[in-house]
Amino acid sequence: MSIIVVFGGTGDLGRKKLIPDIYNLYFENNLPQESRVVTVGRSIRSEGEYKESVRECISRYSRLGYDEDVWRRFEKIISYRQFDFNDIEGYRKLETELAEIEKECGRPLGRLFYLATSHDFFGPIVEKLRDSGLANGRDSFRRLIVEKPFGRDIASARSLNAVIRSVFEEEDIYRIDHYLGNEMIQNILSLRFSNSMLEQVWNSSCIDNIQISILEEAGVEGREEYYESSGVLRDMVQNHIIQLISLVMMEPPVSLAPEDIKEQKLKVIKSICNMTPEDIGENVVLGQYAEGTIKSEGVKGYRSEKGVPEDSVTATFAALRLFVENSRWNGVPVYVRTGKRLNNKLLNIAVEFKNLSSVYGAEAFVDSQPNLLSINILPEESISLQFHMKKPGRLDKLEPFEMSFFKNQELKSKNPETYERLIYDAIRGDSTRYAGWDEIESSWRIVEDILDTCEKRKECLHFYSAGSSGPNEAERLLERDGRRWLGDGNPRK
Amino acid sequence: MSIIVVFGGTGDLGRKKLIPDIYNLYFENNLPQESRVVTVGRSIRSEGEYKESVRECISRYSRLGYDEDVWRRFEKIISYRQFDFNDIEGYRKLETELAEIEKECGRPLGRLFYLATSHDFFGPIVEKLRDSGLANGRDSFRRLIVEKPFGRDIASARSLNAVIRSVFEEEDIYRIDHYLGNEMIQNILSLRFSNSMLEQVWNSSCIDNIQISILEEAGVEGREEYYESSGVLRDMVQNHIIQLISLVMMEPPVSLAPEDIKEQKLKVIKSICNMTPEDIGENVVLGQYAEGTIKSEGVKGYRSEKGVPEDSVTATFAALRLFVENSRWNGVPVYVRTGKRLNNKLLNIAVEFKNLSSVYGAEAFVDSQPNLLSINILPEESISLQFHMKKPGRLDKLEPFEMSFFKNQELKSKNPETYERLIYDAIRGDSTRYAGWDEIESSWRIVEDILDTCEKRKECLHFYSAGSSGPNEAERLLERDGRRWLGDGNPRK
Repeated sequence: MSIIVVFGGTGDLGRKKLIPDIYNLYFENNLPQESRVVTVGRSIRSEGEYKESVRECISRYSRLGYDEDVWRRFEKIISYRQFDFNDIEGYRKLETELAEIEKECGRPLGRLFYLATSHDFFGPIVEKLRDSGLANGRDSFRRLIVEKPFGRDIASARSLNAVIRSVFEEEDIYRIDHYLGNEMIQNILSLRFSNSMLEQVWNSSCIDNIQISILEEAGVEGREEYYESSGVLRDMVQNHIIQLISLVMMEPPVSLAPEDIKEQKLKVIKSICNMTPEDIGENVVLGQYAEGTIKSEGVKGYRSEKGVPEDSVTATFAALRLFVENSRWNGVPVYVRTGKRLNNKLLNIAVEFKNLSSVYGAEAFVDSQPNLLSINILPEESISLQFHMKKPGRLDKLEPFEMSFFKNQELKSKNPETYERLIYDAIRGDSTRYAGWDEIESSWRIVEDILDTCEKRKECLHFYSAGSSGPNEAERLLERDGRRWLGDGNPRK
Repeated sequence: MSIIVVFGGTGDLGRKKLIPDIYNLYFENNLPQESRVVTVGRSIRSEGEYKESVRECISRYSRLGYDEDVWRRFEKIISYRQFDFNDIEGYRKLETELAEIEKECGRPLGRLFYLATSHDFFGPIVEKLRDSGLANGRDSFRRLIVEKPFGRDIASARSLNAVIRSVFEEEDIYRIDHYLGNEMIQNILSLRFSNSMLEQVWNSSCIDNIQISILEEAGVEGREEYYESSGVLRDMVQNHIIQLISLVMMEPPVSLAPEDIKEQKLKVIKSICNMTPEDIGENVVLGQYAEGTIKSEGVKGYRSEKGVPEDSVTATFAALRLFVENSRWNGVPVYVRTGKRLNNKLLNIAVEFKNLSSVYGAEAFVDSQPNLLSINILPEESISLQFHMKKPGRLDKLEPFEMSFFKNQELKSKNPETYERLIYDAIRGDSTRYAGWDEIESSWRIVEDILDTCEKRKECLHFYSAGSSGPNEAERLLERDGRRWLGDGNPRK
């Protein structure tokens, strides 16, 4: 039995994901029946109003749907507390209440604090958790889930971390990277380490290059202020993309224990080559969307979005060419691209194998395309493998054929939602699917080098039409190496 | 333009396959319009009767179907000659006729002789082709297609070959192994050598064992006399199975030229380990079917089949454990099983990869099953790959998932029939899909060792019920090694 305290649980994330997912956990008995869920918010509402709003969220957003019976039980364990996040008195009152619940139960209860507020409040809330005594006591667990972003550069990340570490032990800190809660992304490790066929070829002798694409059609939509101050490198590269690189390229861990996995992920992040300002000029393309057309509808340029300055140089697109410098990946480029207002919604990891056709004198094989393994998350979850076979008939011509396993079609309804899984993990004390501090710090190093260089030279920024595939310079980044972007789902011609 | 002379073209093979397939070639303009097709048979029938029977065969057995227009043209190029295969006069008359056709054409025509008679006639017919002058002349090609069986042991194969080589050059001799004309079997080389991902793991470091299963529900059906004198080792192992082994296990050829491919196939066949009589006792299981039930119908035992002696010791089932002794395949067992009157109709090559789970301490991976690549020919053509992924949900349990490419569903109608392809190849002078003499001779060596040993010790023969999976001893052959038969299409439990 434990108590979950959600700060900022009345916001978008809380209403659409956290509360419905906590309900799902409860529904499937993955949350002990006697648990309590306290939402802390700044808006004034009665307990009744709050419960009614939760009921509505569940009906609209829960994967398991509203169930009268479950709700009758669930509404008894949830409650709402209103106070200003800077008001220590609110925390003290909550501490008194929780202490009373514990007294009733006759035993100390684990406490899981979830920070889903604006990131400005992360530090202040943690300080109050400490000062009010809410996070004290070691008879039962005290854990903290922190939403992203974790800082906006190394310095701010470090100072946030210092505050948090003044209250919580490292193993009790759960830094969210919600990509890590995705079923298919979690599957990367299983796929790699339980298939000997793959593990044997997962190295620079056999792999030509690795590509990660996170493309969005959406713009900044209501997050202009946050986005303007962060940009694509902080919003996507520092966290999600570097985490994906670490999963795809890590060495086998000694075990599946969180610390063993994190150790190997960290090694990869640390091995991503440092880039001099000159390297960055050659290997980084930043872009910002101008007006254009998406699905036949005209859309504004980034600089015309509400609250964005007319001369903003914030990047909404990035393409990078990185190298992981270790014996496994020597010389294998990792191409990354991510951006907003593009012509495609795509989240995909493409692993292109070397073409061995030159090894065989046989002319029939000269045209053969390399094998391609795709791990697809969006628009649909699947793993596919592009193979080559003879064209049927008499000619010895090769054709590409794709074998796919469409995971989401078969299994979607069975899959717990991302936050459901992440909260469940935190309650159990499993931080495998969370980012460790060292990983975050090392990721900031990579991104900060780029930010430093690019903020000095504005010529780094290339404009692209909304609804295009990004700036032409991103294509050239690969063409220069005799390669092209993959992962758009079409076999290459 | 060329002349095809089919000896024995009025038999089952001729009526159901050869003539309809020659028609298909003609239909799709893969046979020059001015070609001639002469069928030689022993039965007396008029030209009109013969053409009528061909028309019926085409309607019933041609993949492209009867077409009035094509038939009107096709019937002009086909003809029937009746003579006894031992009667030199018949051959001489045919030579005169062909010489006249050539005179009409004003140029020499290539001649392709197809021996589709009982194998007893192969030698005599070739001698008459020589003595009558039919196979002489080098202004245009003289080629010979020989049906199986090519001898019944090394000695008879050698003497048949000597007769043939007294008339034809090695490169003009096309020894049929109709398995080699199968689309999916042809695809083994493309699959292996155009997919770098596979070629990299195609060796003893990554592959645990290879299994070839050719299982039949059918019995001997009208071929009792032939079968009684040959048995399963001569009927299936010496030719088809050893050819499959050579394709799956050969080194990459220097080119796709027939001689380069045959060179590599021969190396594999020569590298199949010799077995002492003791080895044979341990690695060979022979069986004969007793009465039983197939698809709820009672069927006779082999000894009760018409024309089979009551005390026959002819094997109708064989399971073998072989090794190819070279650096690529060191220690990788090749398990082979084939037989009649079994519970399944199956033609399958299963390549089982090593289980690396022990490399990873992670408990979650300990149960993982090895990857499995299946090349399926019967009951349907497909290539499938068994992978492992995480079970959806929160538990770190693995599940096997199969990715398949079902070739035959998409492409069946486009595929030329086996004999169509083989005849087309012979007309073009491409012997890739035919067995070379060296391969046949080496295959006989392997099979003859087994025959010699087993014919001496009758305890080699195990009886099995018709409709079962064969004798229990065949299961034990693998259980002893901690393995089990694969390829039945079900993921292993």
